[in-house]
Amino acid sequence: MKSIKIGLLGLGNVGYGTFSVLKRNQEEIKRRAGRGIDVVAVAVRDVARAEALVAGGCKVVNDPYLIVNDPEIDIVVELIGGYDLSKTLVMQAIANGKHVVTANKALLAVHGNEIFAAAQDKGVMVAFEAAVAGGIPIIKALREGLTANRIEWIAGIINGTTNFILSEMRDKGLDFATVLKQAQELGYAEADPTFDIEGVDAAHKATIMSAIAFGIPVQFDKAYVEGISNLNAVDIRYAEQLGYRIKLLGITKRATVNGVEGIELRVHPTLIPAKRLIANVEGAMNAVLVHGDAVGASLYSGRGAGAEPTASSVIADLVDITRLATADPEHRVPHLAFQPNAMTNIEILPMSEITTSYYLRMHVADQPGVLADLTRILAERGISIDAMLQKEPAEGETHTDIIMLTHQTQEKNVTAAIEKMEALNSVVGTVTKIRLENLS
Amino acid sequence: MKSIKIGLLGLGNVGYGTFSVLKRNQEEIKRRAGRGIDVVAVAVRDVARAEALVAGGCKVVNDPYLIVNDPEIDIVVELIGGYDLSKTLVMQAIANGKHVVTANKALLAVHGNEIFAAAQDKGVMVAFEAAVAGGIPIIKALREGLTANRIEWIAGIINGTTNFILSEMRDKGLDFATVLKQAQELGYAEADPTFDIEGVDAAHKATIMSAIAFGIPVQFDKAYVEGISNLNAVDIRYAEQLGYRIKLLGITKRATVNGVEGIELRVHPTLIPAKRLIANVEGAMNAVLVHGDAVGASLYSGRGAGAEPTASSVIADLVDITRLATADPEHRVPHLAFQPNAMTNIEILPMSEITTSYYLRMHVADQPGVLADLTRILAERGISIDAMLQKEPAEGETHTDIIMLTHQTQEKNVTAAIEKMEALNSVVGTVTKIRLENLS
Repeated sequence: MKSIKIGLLGLGNVGYGTFSVLKRNQEEIKRRAGRGIDVVAVAVRDVARAEALVAGGCKVVNDPYLIVNDPEIDIVVELIGGYDLSKTLVMQAIANGKHVVTANKALLAVHGNEIFAAAQDKGVMVAFEAAVAGGIPIIKALREGLTANRIEWIAGIINGTTNFILSEMRDKGLDFATVLKQAQELGYAEADPTFDIEGVDAAHKATIMSAIAFGIPVQFDKAYVEGISNLNAVDIRYAEQLGYRIKLLGITKRATVNGVEGIELRVHPTLIPAKRLIANVEGAMNAVLVHGDAVGASLYSGRGAGAEPTASSVIADLVDITRLATADPEHRVPHLAFQPNAMTNIEILPMSEITTSYYLRMHVADQPGVLADLTRILAERGISIDAMLQKEPAEGETHTDIIMLTHQTQEKNVTAAIEKMEALNSVVGTVTKIRLENLS
Repeated sequence: MKSIKIGLLGLGNVGYGTFSVLKRNQEEIKRRAGRGIDVVAVAVRDVARAEALVAGGCKVVNDPYLIVNDPEIDIVVELIGGYDLSKTLVMQAIANGKHVVTANKALLAVHGNEIFAAAQDKGVMVAFEAAVAGGIPIIKALREGLTANRIEWIAGIINGTTNFILSEMRDKGLDFATVLKQAQELGYAEADPTFDIEGVDAAHKATIMSAIAFGIPVQFDKAYVEGISNLNAVDIRYAEQLGYRIKLLGITKRATVNGVEGIELRVHPTLIPAKRLIANVEGAMNAVLVHGDAVGASLYSGRGAGAEPTASSVIADLVDITRLATADPEHRVPHLAFQPNAMTNIEILPMSEITTSYYLRMHVADQPGVLADLTRILAERGISIDAMLQKEPAEGETHTDIIMLTHQTQEKNVTAAIEKMEALNSVVGTVTKIRLENLS
């Protein structure tokens, strides 16, 4: 059978990784797919650089429209990132009846509904395994491997930069700014690290997983996003003393509030029990923990970024599409796991309505009655305490830290309690609040 | 579209799990698959018991041929186990043009080549996600998620009974026999635990993964199989002091011996570094670590047995088949990951030719020259020592333990060295040998 023809948009890190792995494992991949998969053209800004890289292996063009409009090309692989040009090109490729593979989580989290609808209309596939957790085949696990399950929740370490920073902060007792600088020098963090450290990248990925897990549209605008840039080394230390680690998690979860079903969708630093397998996923590695009603919890872990791990997912999509390219669209896995006419519109809950446990750190005067005041404030709002850590004041100090772990409660109760606590004369400054998930 | 009709062979633990999950998550599954999936009949030995269980939900018959020969049934789910009747029924279902889903690793590891060839001829699918690692979608990850990769090795904790026993032995410092008895009382081990504790079950699963990873036929008869029944608590303790845990691993790996490519396929107790994520998979949980050239290492972990986790995999296969049932066979994923005409016959290596590291424990006289003798014997066979642990003799004792960890070497070198060591007057009894894998 004749080979399938690929056009690459972009030849950066992942683009070149895709090109090289397809070339290196050409035979192995063909033996699996039943057909060759050939990159016939690549569109880049710097043609000379790309020509040196591909060394005659394919055509190099400057104009990406020469790829999305090329009748010879079967599948367009979008690896240029961003929301604007990438969206225009993807939509044009779809309009031209081409299948699309993309690693662009930002594009899908924001414009996915429009893109998938267009693909559905044209009968083409838009595949995106590489958009979430790099080389880990988590989209496949969620969309196909766990189809028997009513998925209850997903919690993932889905940003390698922040996991590297948190691992280093814990390991070496360093503060955020110092580790960020090291991460930038080592290439684990970008010059402008905002998207990573503020949780935006993780929220894009959580948004996509949320849609697939629950059969809802992608709704990035409703995600709660909190990064790690305000995290203090002291909280990592206290958490450890209490048997927890702090990870930046992307979480999405079914919840019932006042008898109405809703979905939680949130990214924030999270205390998790140190003994959980996922708590021991360190450095730049990613991991996603999925809880289904039949299978229970299952964990998927591996490299969440990098040229070849990401290429591994891009190529898995290419093989899937190659297999199904000439089959009737009804035989394909739906883009968002559920048939387009079987999606639901369960609401994403506002953050005040979510339910979880909390780590609270108060800096307080070392005097009688303080603890009584704090516990009364919690009790009045129905918040019960699971564990407490009270430090002796340091030599010559009049203030000290109290740390409390709460049982599950709604976020709005904690917000109200903190407001009351901060109004106490005995409490200095603000109360530190970090959410805690038991993940069991 | 009309629903797809399922016939179940067997309504034991997994059979009833499949029946209940299909019923409970009926709507959710249909929203994904695009069609209903209905169990229309079940064949069992004890009809009265089954009728009580299914409560009118489907027909109950005593004769399994009424299912495999029923023209109304599209997919036969084989959950009776064993090699004989199950094989006859599966072959008959295939001959009748029915698709088959099975959780029977023994059947596939031993008769898989014949079964897959028959299915290929008839243009039907035989799916077996549930045959390896229960609810973990590892077959899907290997066959589809990692298609870009040249798979280099797989190492898996793929038997929950033995992992439970090893976890308890380590945790509580108990010996094998005591823990086995507890495991039997708790239902984690069968009354006749031979298949589990002697590594046979793990070898069935490793055999299947080996075929899928490397594009070779299933060859259970060439697998090396060693269980945990001879493992001593003292070795678990020493391993821990050296920074290792002992797990029963199913391992399959590419290797080159004298310039010729071969495949290692082996199940045995294995020391692995305690800091590896997979070393921390405890109790009855399963986990599979896969190393591909593009993706690096990725880990898949979850429940490896039990009614609903196994049903989760059975149903995932049902959904896959439902999607592709009416598509041309060329659009399907090949049974053993590689196209039938693109399989290879790389040889499975005999155990003497495999390469790994070793843990050796010698019980020796506490006298000068012993260590010199032992190290000379290793050096003469080109075996170098990575770490050593020498215990002080206990009060009043004249003998003590020496533990050595070797660097990588071929098994035959170690076998020869052990023979020489055991011939020394200063060495008492046999030398304990446990293989060690770094898994990096």
